[in-house]
Amino acid sequence: MAELITPRVLKGFRDFLPEAEIERKLLIEMVEATFRSFGFVPIDTPALEYTEILLGKGGGETDKQVYRFADGGGRDVALRFDLTIPFARFMAEHRNELYLPFKRYHIAKVWRGENTQRGRYREFTQCDFDIVGADTAECDYEILALMRSALTAIGVGGFSIRYSHRGIFNRFLANLGIADKSVDVLRLVDKLAKIGRDEVLAQLGTLTNSEKALSILEYIEPGKSDRETLAKLERLAGGPAPDTERLSSLISMMEETGIAPSFVLDPSITRGLDYYTGVVYETFLTEIPAIGSVCSGGRYNNLASLYTKEELPGVGASIGLDRLLAGLEALGKSKKKGSFTTVLITAIDQSLSGHYQNLARRMREAGLAVEVFPDKKKLPQQFAYAEKKGIPFALICGENEKNAGKVTLKNLATRESLEMIDLETAIASAGKP
Amino acid sequence: MAELITPRVLKGFRDFLPEAEIERKLLIEMVEATFRSFGFVPIDTPALEYTEILLGKGGGETDKQVYRFADGGGRDVALRFDLTIPFARFMAEHRNELYLPFKRYHIAKVWRGENTQRGRYREFTQCDFDIVGADTAECDYEILALMRSALTAIGVGGFSIRYSHRGIFNRFLANLGIADKSVDVLRLVDKLAKIGRDEVLAQLGTLTNSEKALSILEYIEPGKSDRETLAKLERLAGGPAPDTERLSSLISMMEETGIAPSFVLDPSITRGLDYYTGVVYETFLTEIPAIGSVCSGGRYNNLASLYTKEELPGVGASIGLDRLLAGLEALGKSKKKGSFTTVLITAIDQSLSGHYQNLARRMREAGLAVEVFPDKKKLPQQFAYAEKKGIPFALICGENEKNAGKVTLKNLATRESLEMIDLETAIASAGKP
Repeated sequence: MAELITPRVLKGFRDFLPEAEIERKLLIEMVEATFRSFGFVPIDTPALEYTEILLGKGGGETDKQVYRFADGGGRDVALRFDLTIPFARFMAEHRNELYLPFKRYHIAKVWRGENTQRGRYREFTQCDFDIVGADTAECDYEILALMRSALTAIGVGGFSIRYSHRGIFNRFLANLGIADKSVDVLRLVDKLAKIGRDEVLAQLGTLTNSEKALSILEYIEPGKSDRETLAKLERLAGGPAPDTERLSSLISMMEETGIAPSFVLDPSITRGLDYYTGVVYETFLTEIPAIGSVCSGGRYNNLASLYTKEELPGVGASIGLDRLLAGLEALGKSKKKGSFTTVLITAIDQSLSGHYQNLARRMREAGLAVEVFPDKKKLPQQFAYAEKKGIPFALICGENEKNAGKVTLKNLATRESLEMIDLETAIASAGKP
Repeated sequence: MAELITPRVLKGFRDFLPEAEIERKLLIEMVEATFRSFGFVPIDTPALEYTEILLGKGGGETDKQVYRFADGGGRDVALRFDLTIPFARFMAEHRNELYLPFKRYHIAKVWRGENTQRGRYREFTQCDFDIVGADTAECDYEILALMRSALTAIGVGGFSIRYSHRGIFNRFLANLGIADKSVDVLRLVDKLAKIGRDEVLAQLGTLTNSEKALSILEYIEPGKSDRETLAKLERLAGGPAPDTERLSSLISMMEETGIAPSFVLDPSITRGLDYYTGVVYETFLTEIPAIGSVCSGGRYNNLASLYTKEELPGVGASIGLDRLLAGLEALGKSKKKGSFTTVLITAIDQSLSGHYQNLARRMREAGLAVEVFPDKKKLPQQFAYAEKKGIPFALICGENEKNAGKVTLKNLATRESLEMIDLETAIASAGKP
């Protein structure tokens, strides 16, 4: 016999056993149902692309994390590391086959050779949704309302979607005469929660001067209400402009539809990336804000500039599925189950195999998920199997039951049995899944 | 401005635009619902694995097609090219966390650097389901019954699941004294449909002798009924044995449950691979058999022998999603649609943006998929958008409607409008999706 190969996965990669995979699938199905109810359509793109497409003609910090190699035909290829760049390429390539505004969602795996010591995975699922081809308050509103509906559907408890506007912030920095330092300022502001107000103030002071540092802190402090905050931003940025009017329209729509309580205008939300140009947002769970934002995104003014001259403004967000699963787990709100099965038909008499399958068929036709135990094992072992799969009911049928046209249904949690009942009664008692 | 990068995908790779992706997703959802109703549970495994896991310590014909490279840490890694080997590794690695019999399904992408000139893709989705850890007629039956239910649910029209038993065939060859030539015989028998009876007979004669060649053709010819065919196989293989008893039990169960008409015992089905040891099967669409088998599989006696000493017998099948989609297309049975949206709320008065969102919210709460047109365009352009997305209804609401607490619902196919109606009436008229 040949030497055995040790079964193992690569560092940073994961198997999903049924319980974890069911939980993940149910979460994705809930999110996807929300996307569809808002008119978003799914797309898919290849896992593997030309490296030039994914990294551009130059290169950058991300490059080191990318799984990149030469394929059998000598092409320089790489595994996608996000869904944004493939989407940009997709829009540029298929622009003439599509319509605008284009509202798409894409839920798929991405790969990054990250340092796994920080608890990061090298393979994970991203869940992105965007509206491309229009720059209106209605689009901004729709993404935010969709985030709220999806998180509500998931049942993750209280959450706060904190939003801001990068355009107003840039105008404010220009007003202070430090537009050229925006990257450094953004990086420091992003650290507020981590290093604290005083340290940020000190470092901002070194970067600019103490007066401007105080002004920046004044800017990023949320007010008592979104309207009050907006008035302050408008003042500090040098007066009203389309960017502040955009936020005002957005707030009006949130107020009119009654969803405003889920949102906070928080100018400290800036999103590090240069990519964003308009509204930006992050979402925190009320009970466990420390796990970080579970849904983030913003508006950008040009999605696909690397591949096309057509300007494609858009707005979108990404749901952090792994963080949401961790959040649900921490909150004791995980929907864990070992299977979808409601009834296990036990096999106690091999001569009745066909009868068991007939019972299963009739129960499935009534909408129940049913399985027949397919091996020769003693009843306690069949019950143990049901327990491991989280199956709530067992159906027992011997020669006597069969001859009488009856079955026995056992509730495996309460250990109570309904003996010698009609199949219809058993179906009604087990209920629809 | 930097030079543009040409947006394109790698040869053999595909983008899925919304219509194609929706069709694919709906097909997968139907199949998945069937899996769940039979008690099968989902798993997932990494796209990337150690090459040693996927190819074994040796190598073979498959190797050339594998996307293989050294990762950032110098590990020899490869993209999975099927779901069977990762499943074997999974079972060996997690045996102690699982229960037997283990009924799993796995729907995921795989990658093969195949010759694309034959219309093959280098990235495609596989859909596998297996029962591992038991060797019973009940398991064999369950896989076959599940195949039948899934194909029926998909609505692909007439189909025939043709099955056979590799063990009986091996016994027959041993009986003829040509067990050592089984690989060559299998290859020739597999060519029957392609090169015809006479040519197979001639080549079998060269391989053995003309008498044995005739005997092989007698063996693989189906009889008038499955029972008659089975009796012949039993005779030619040297009498009854557990393998023929297994087929007899299987036929009895199919008869008792009434699903027998979907199945044909066809001894010419042998499945090329050495891997199979028991029942094997392929599925052909009645109206277009030429596209080949849309669902195939069989029983194997040892899933994970490369990774564990524990014997794991199993039975399973794989649904050819791409072939099924092509089949549905050819039969005019494709369920193509541009979106899931039922109602487009047109935007004809910007001051009513919040009102439109409120209408959308109420309609979604009633179970409808609804979108508000999020850009400033003229009404004909909004209707054109609805047409491209396949949205059947438009809702129109101006200042008059709003003040009267009414809406107008337009059926975009018939061009008929229900004017100034209650929202509840509009919801009922648009129906649930």
